[in-house]
Amino acid sequence: MPLSRMELKNVKSLLTKKGRNTTKMFIAEGIRLMEESLRHGFFPSSVYYTPVLLSERGFSVLDKFIRKNIKTTQISLSQMTAISDTQSPQGIVGVFEIPDQNLKEPYPKNYRNILVCENISDPGNLGTLLRTALAFDFGMILLCGDCVEVFSPKVIRSTAGAVFGLKICKVNLKELGLFINKTEATAVAAAIDGTSWSESWEKIQKGSPRPLIIGSEADGLSLEILNIATVILRISHSGKVESLNAAVAGSIIMKQIYDL
Amino acid sequence: MPLSRMELKNVKSLLTKKGRNTTKMFIAEGIRLMEESLRHGFFPSSVYYTPVLLSERGFSVLDKFIRKNIKTTQISLSQMTAISDTQSPQGIVGVFEIPDQNLKEPYPKNYRNILVCENISDPGNLGTLLRTALAFDFGMILLCGDCVEVFSPKVIRSTAGAVFGLKICKVNLKELGLFINKTEATAVAAAIDGTSWSESWEKIQKGSPRPLIIGSEADGLSLEILNIATVILRISHSGKVESLNAAVAGSIIMKQIYDL
Repeated sequence: MPLSRMELKNVKSLLTKKGRNTTKMFIAEGIRLMEESLRHGFFPSSVYYTPVLLSERGFSVLDKFIRKNIKTTQISLSQMTAISDTQSPQGIVGVFEIPDQNLKEPYPKNYRNILVCENISDPGNLGTLLRTALAFDFGMILLCGDCVEVFSPKVIRSTAGAVFGLKICKVNLKELGLFINKTEATAVAAAIDGTSWSESWEKIQKGSPRPLIIGSEADGLSLEILNIATVILRISHSGKVESLNAAVAGSIIMKQIYDL
Repeated sequence: MPLSRMELKNVKSLLTKKGRNTTKMFIAEGIRLMEESLRHGFFPSSVYYTPVLLSERGFSVLDKFIRKNIKTTQISLSQMTAISDTQSPQGIVGVFEIPDQNLKEPYPKNYRNILVCENISDPGNLGTLLRTALAFDFGMILLCGDCVEVFSPKVIRSTAGAVFGLKICKVNLKELGLFINKTEATAVAAAIDGTSWSESWEKIQKGSPRPLIIGSEADGLSLEILNIATVILRISHSGKVESLNAAVAGSIIMKQIYDL
């Protein structure tokens, strides 16, 4: 049975921030994101599909959702186009609950490496940072200050599905400070006037947990965050550019810490 | 004197691929890009400015162009809006000649590290790769296959001005193969089924020149390119993601090679 007008409107509203805030749901589309949802066991509450658009790989993903007893609804091509955020929809969309993003005590203990993003406003940069974080075992993300909304379609797409495998919390500076204090964390901040890797790695190696703090490209890290940091780290380079892209800077350090 | 209708149309055409192809010119806008043009000595043939939009830093950049005897033209706010590609124009735009992109013998000898991009279609990824390349002394870029056009406004912006400091050539596979053969290069390709850094770094360390080959996210590297490569390198990670973002993968390896 196709979607009613009202249902379609509800799903479509998830493309907007207001709609996500009201319903506490978000939308993810495409075969790859649906595969990653299955892989990480972060299941949608509803799946919408349009057979005429589905590839063999698409049917296989749909089949897995059906076997998991997840609600699947066939919709028309025009309905799929209406709820899709991409130019060539692949015929499958999932609607998910936005998980609780509060960081409460007792703090989760199973994350040694943590990525802290301060004021990352570019969706592509935030998504890429999350994707790299999961790759290098930074399983928890703390979003601080004025970051772009993590459950927006653009960020979700840039994570390439990593969003389904991460514990993500929004914190203010006070909560971040408390967390660092109480867990005796070694907070590592990336900044242009920091020390080099060779001067810092031993201190970082011993740290547990290790929140790595990455700031916005435009303004760098806030003074408050720099005051919280145990180690301030600089990525040495030729100096032929003013700075690195925030996602690149974060990724390089996450790889270095992963390799320790 | 403001721009004539025809002049305005010509400058505006540089926002399109067709316009750039016809005139062999490109456009770059904003204070930061203009500062980088000055820093790298890659000067515009013309600068357009709108005083009401210029900040103190903007006037200072303009002053430097005037002192270098570069042609500067004041234009109206509506003309600036017409030729601008951004939502809040900073009141300064440069028009530049597209440099020769052929790789001819004798090959330039002053680049030990070279970045080869195959089929990088995302403007943000290509721009970010170029920015990181300049940071880590990969001074020459070889674009191979179906890469996005490097002198498009989006790529230029993502390079954060690095485009002005790099030698950039377009090559086909045959030219790339010839270059690698004749210069006895150690070509390093990044691919999922390669060897780890610890198995590869000694071979890479000795190499000169060292073209590092990064492929598209969607399809990886072509077989032809993999056949050319001396070393095939894998970035070890947790396996919790299918792959890394192409710009991140390239950046991590460029940093590793820079640190050798």
